[in-house]
Amino acid sequence: MDLKVNEGRVMDELERLAEFSDTPAPAVTRVVFSQADMDARRFVKDECAGAGLAVHEDAIGNMFARWAGSEPELPAVGTGSHIDAIPHSGRYDGTVGVLGGLEAIRVLREAGFRPRRCIELVMFTAEEPTRFGIGCLGSRMLSGSLEAGAGERLKDGDGRSLNQVRQGAGFDGSLGAVRLPRGHYHAFVELHIEQGPLLERKQIPLGVVTAIAAPASIRIIIEGEGGHAGAVLMPARRDAFLGACEIALALEAAAKATGAIDTVATTGVCQVFPGAVNSIPSRVQLAVDVRDIDETRRDQVLNALAQACETVAATRGLKVEREVLNADSPAICDATVVESLTAACEEQGAKFDKMVSRAYHDSLFVSRIAPAAMLFIPCRAGVSHRPDEYASPEDITRGIGVLAAALRRLAG
Amino acid sequence: MDLKVNEGRVMDELERLAEFSDTPAPAVTRVVFSQADMDARRFVKDECAGAGLAVHEDAIGNMFARWAGSEPELPAVGTGSHIDAIPHSGRYDGTVGVLGGLEAIRVLREAGFRPRRCIELVMFTAEEPTRFGIGCLGSRMLSGSLEAGAGERLKDGDGRSLNQVRQGAGFDGSLGAVRLPRGHYHAFVELHIEQGPLLERKQIPLGVVTAIAAPASIRIIIEGEGGHAGAVLMPARRDAFLGACEIALALEAAAKATGAIDTVATTGVCQVFPGAVNSIPSRVQLAVDVRDIDETRRDQVLNALAQACETVAATRGLKVEREVLNADSPAICDATVVESLTAACEEQGAKFDKMVSRAYHDSLFVSRIAPAAMLFIPCRAGVSHRPDEYASPEDITRGIGVLAAALRRLAG
Repeated sequence: MDLKVNEGRVMDELERLAEFSDTPAPAVTRVVFSQADMDARRFVKDECAGAGLAVHEDAIGNMFARWAGSEPELPAVGTGSHIDAIPHSGRYDGTVGVLGGLEAIRVLREAGFRPRRCIELVMFTAEEPTRFGIGCLGSRMLSGSLEAGAGERLKDGDGRSLNQVRQGAGFDGSLGAVRLPRGHYHAFVELHIEQGPLLERKQIPLGVVTAIAAPASIRIIIEGEGGHAGAVLMPARRDAFLGACEIALALEAAAKATGAIDTVATTGVCQVFPGAVNSIPSRVQLAVDVRDIDETRRDQVLNALAQACETVAATRGLKVEREVLNADSPAICDATVVESLTAACEEQGAKFDKMVSRAYHDSLFVSRIAPAAMLFIPCRAGVSHRPDEYASPEDITRGIGVLAAALRRLAG
Repeated sequence: MDLKVNEGRVMDELERLAEFSDTPAPAVTRVVFSQADMDARRFVKDECAGAGLAVHEDAIGNMFARWAGSEPELPAVGTGSHIDAIPHSGRYDGTVGVLGGLEAIRVLREAGFRPRRCIELVMFTAEEPTRFGIGCLGSRMLSGSLEAGAGERLKDGDGRSLNQVRQGAGFDGSLGAVRLPRGHYHAFVELHIEQGPLLERKQIPLGVVTAIAAPASIRIIIEGEGGHAGAVLMPARRDAFLGACEIALALEAAAKATGAIDTVATTGVCQVFPGAVNSIPSRVQLAVDVRDIDETRRDQVLNALAQACETVAATRGLKVEREVLNADSPAICDATVVESLTAACEEQGAKFDKMVSRAYHDSLFVSRIAPAAMLFIPCRAGVSHRPDEYASPEDITRGIGVLAAALRRLAG
């Protein structure tokens, strides 16, 4: 059976999905449970229903769209990703795995394939940490990596609990019921843009992911003493922002000091209070992200960060609180699913490379309850989380074709 | 004639004025032309009218409340300050000079004094730079230190021009008419809290200000390259926030390097874009404030800052734009007005010290068109621009008594 991806159909859906955004095009901003996110979810659900899939949602808002197999009692084959987007980002991160997964299912059906196992498209809630400070909310809970009780207590920047917010969005079931048992999925495959430059640089159109790097998120709150910028003399100051600067630079130095190219550390958020030109900063909140494919090396950087916080607190007379929000273990992808992907690439005549994912994905958590792997397509200049994020229709289409071939192998 | 300040009356007015705020007590937030500011202006105007003064406003919103003298054709004696307040500040900065000036006028009237010159209370618009990036909007324009054309083009953080905003607030005259001629005021006296710790430390209740430090405001915009915090490797990064950190620390070092206790430099604003934990900062905006009573020494720090911006741009591959929003000259207070103030202190039996103002005041600009000086009262622990800013009723009352005595001397 020949697999024919309908490029126009899926590119049109990607374009329409990008329109659900709180910032003007090309920037996409779709924070979980915002109106833009709710409207975008509605759009995806309608597309799934239109494709004849049976749609349901769980209590955290994960969506499942199922194509029944001839032996529906067998563990299903899963595919999917997320549609939430950080402020001012692009239109391909996550969405290619959701709408591409849907297209793969349509392609298989149009080719006359009849699956033995059910094939289930999953749209995970809040892969991005924007609102609640930790990423992969939906896949964390689904895999039991975040307990219902701990999830309920998460708060957004306005102090609203996850429980309030999801219930306000109409997801009012028990969070305890979100967890799926090991064995629920026979296999899981996530299609995603690389979010790095390697495939493009090597001119290889597909990456079969064999491991996913281990991320850690840290929130740091620095408290000093405010005052009038003209009147408080330099020796008397306890400026929280200057302490924050020293911590951010120490973090950068620690990441570089491992000597490993795979160590990365970022201070992506710095909020200064009160934030007036003539007022000494009294309080700063930082959000720090540290990743590596080697957990020990990553933890070295976390230790150096802790040390920097202590030193800065002591030398500047500041109070520095440091909270590790998450420090997940890396995932090794399942050998059998990886093999299905490489076989699918060969079957479809597509060149591929085996590679590591430096970014963080729902598959990291799904891999804790199911054999999982990922399929990467190139993105221009490695750019992601920016409005100019771009993947070509050709690469997207090729990726969907290989995904469909892999699902056929796994579900057949 | 004995001057009797009504402590209950003025403290009650200060308390009522503090209630016009966009943050809950004790924090005061009253940004120019916000609803809270407009409501507070209404309150002050009503109090002035209630005291029998003739109230009018100019096109930038400066308010003038006049008590006619017996020779109204003579240049008037002015007093006053501002009521706008930076986010999360206190209730005494500026307000003591406005409501204290009003109380001084009432006290003189109640004591049976009949002024020869008119006495005019002035409430200046936007002494604080919060909204439009430069301070003393009203007194700058009134003194001709800011041209009408340049003023019209100022923009707030939402991109709204000063012209739009002031017209929206009902001030729709020509900005060209705001400027007052030299000779309009015979003398000007501003009562203010010290915003520093010296008076309290020396246990002296009054400071007669002989010079006002020279402030400079600089806006720095740093542009680098964003990207995914997991995927972009450290050597490939052009992180705008890390560049900002180096600039802020270099500024601190430059201020300390002058060796003079009077040099102060502050980075009070740092806005990081896009501001997500998993996104490399692509753009940062800083607001920097540098002051000294010695202009040459202050300019040394500005030069060091410029050098740091260039170095950071070169070493980190960033684009760094630096805009000096203002770099005003220090003011030497008028000897005759200073003498009236010291004589008034002696007359009222109040100990005083001559001192320098390290903070920035409307009098800095008024002094360009009129003989001016300032009178300081202590504030607890030197704290200002914070919710716990505090001046005692006793010190406020004493200050108002001396102000009234000085106005009597100047207008008599």
